[in-house]
Amino acid sequence: MNIQAYAAAEPKADFKPFEYKAADLGPHEVLVAVEHCGICHSDLSMLDNDWGITTYPFVGGHEIVGTVLWKGDDVRHLQLGQKVGVGWSSGSCMHCRECMSGHHNRCSTVEATIVGRHGGFASHVVCKSEWAIPIPAALDASKVGPMFCGGLTVFNPFIEADIRPTQRVGVVGIGGLGHLALQFARAWGCEVTAFSGSPAKEEEARSMGAHHFVNSRDPKALEKVRGSLDMVLVTVNVNLDWNAYINTLRPAGTLYFVGAVPPVEFEVMPMIMGAKRIMASPTGSPATAADMLEFCARHNIAPVTEHFPMEKINDAFDHLRSGKARYRIVLDRN
Amino acid sequence: MNIQAYAAAEPKADFKPFEYKAADLGPHEVLVAVEHCGICHSDLSMLDNDWGITTYPFVGGHEIVGTVLWKGDDVRHLQLGQKVGVGWSSGSCMHCRECMSGHHNRCSTVEATIVGRHGGFASHVVCKSEWAIPIPAALDASKVGPMFCGGLTVFNPFIEADIRPTQRVGVVGIGGLGHLALQFARAWGCEVTAFSGSPAKEEEARSMGAHHFVNSRDPKALEKVRGSLDMVLVTVNVNLDWNAYINTLRPAGTLYFVGAVPPVEFEVMPMIMGAKRIMASPTGSPATAADMLEFCARHNIAPVTEHFPMEKINDAFDHLRSGKARYRIVLDRN
Repeated sequence: MNIQAYAAAEPKADFKPFEYKAADLGPHEVLVAVEHCGICHSDLSMLDNDWGITTYPFVGGHEIVGTVLWKGDDVRHLQLGQKVGVGWSSGSCMHCRECMSGHHNRCSTVEATIVGRHGGFASHVVCKSEWAIPIPAALDASKVGPMFCGGLTVFNPFIEADIRPTQRVGVVGIGGLGHLALQFARAWGCEVTAFSGSPAKEEEARSMGAHHFVNSRDPKALEKVRGSLDMVLVTVNVNLDWNAYINTLRPAGTLYFVGAVPPVEFEVMPMIMGAKRIMASPTGSPATAADMLEFCARHNIAPVTEHFPMEKINDAFDHLRSGKARYRIVLDRN
Repeated sequence: MNIQAYAAAEPKADFKPFEYKAADLGPHEVLVAVEHCGICHSDLSMLDNDWGITTYPFVGGHEIVGTVLWKGDDVRHLQLGQKVGVGWSSGSCMHCRECMSGHHNRCSTVEATIVGRHGGFASHVVCKSEWAIPIPAALDASKVGPMFCGGLTVFNPFIEADIRPTQRVGVVGIGGLGHLALQFARAWGCEVTAFSGSPAKEEEARSMGAHHFVNSRDPKALEKVRGSLDMVLVTVNVNLDWNAYINTLRPAGTLYFVGAVPPVEFEVMPMIMGAKRIMASPTGSPATAADMLEFCARHNIAPVTEHFPMEKINDAFDHLRSGKARYRIVLDRN
């Protein structure tokens, strides 16, 4: 069969209709009929070849929601017609130490959905069945796409840093990732502090779960929360005064990076005296994604989305480039 | 009673005999008759006022071994004549969240044995009873002093980073701290790699437990161990190419700082892709110190020491300043 996609021919180019022939399905693969696909900021970075790893024609899209249309001979845990999501990763070796330990997202040969292969801005997408995550019926399929990259990226730190409900969590940056992190932190049972350089976002941050709002451009405001937080989750990708954020941590607190910030510099003595940690991670494992979806259903957690028909993909990218997306864009197929 | 000590009158000055009157013991305090006292590199930093926190006359010494001579009215868990050790910390509030959680070393008002008070280069020293750690009879009291600061500092990371015997540990710097870290790592059951810029130390590093020796001045040698270690414990206090050491970590591995290195800079993407961590900590809690001593007795772990009579304290400091101490200096009282 042929897949109807949207592809860019070169960096920063418009997406244009692009048809390619689906390869034969491997025994562990599934073909997903795409219904919705979120646009993540990394789709834009890949379109522009910011990381030097893009191949053209480029078909982006790695926040995919759809149904299993075909499946390989050895796929038994998914049914035809089942609703699934696919995120940044579309496959892993399944046999290395990391895969065998449940940390498939750390597999050194993990396959990225839109790196060297075609993603979800299309009628269909292929992935390894282990990375097609069943979507609970309680979730709104039209809004769940962004959870598979943006959501998982900020959910995973709660698992990795072993955050407990008695703790206090700060979220730096209230955008596509941050507005989900606030919801997770609140539902996790934590006391939640939002850090943003946009005071206009305070009301919305509070509506998403923040108990406190700190203007991150005000050093005095940062000083006020000194020594109070167990985790500060950094969702921005710019350079900040990391020593100031380390100072906001309680003893044994964690500064957690999930975004491609410039090289980080920090003073060691405050880290030593407070027994503090710096952590980082890439999205999450399939098991963590499944746990995240169940948690979202239980707590009514969903991204704030703006929707475009998939054929208006270039308008959607213009909107993303403008910095005005609030907070995640989803492309819908008819 | 009067305490006979050795004190420096100003930065870099010689130590001279110095007598001071012991204050009345508080209900939770003990007075320890000093038998041995290690010299730690931080005694030298304090003598020179490198950190700007030294008060003069300065009586250093925070790797103290002795016996309980007097105890306060409320001290029930220690007996007169009992052999105890005192390290960097000599007291903590016992009531804050950190103290009440067993992390007394993270107490924000933790009292340092030689900061604003007099330490163990003396006939006697006073400390809070909780920080006088009983020494198992199986340990050689003349050699155990350095365990209370140097030893605890590199033992604590195994606890904090939750190191398991199946894992692989690297130790950067084979000196006063590193030679103890190698012994801990080997006894912990781990595969052990020593990193040193002194190839002449290879044989000794292997005798202390290293399975592998890496010349840290050779970038190719570092590259060879890429992606192989679960923890790299940094015992030096100089700037190194931290990105190169982060590259030696396996997924979820930890770069661990215990020394006052200059500001650290690192690239974030390798940390994210490998879900890696940076940690740091100050010495350890009293409970961890007790566990360490039991572990040392079980596995015959001890520092390599050089001994000076306490009255030769200035010769001992000259030797430390020369960089030739192998590996810890202990002052003995008659």
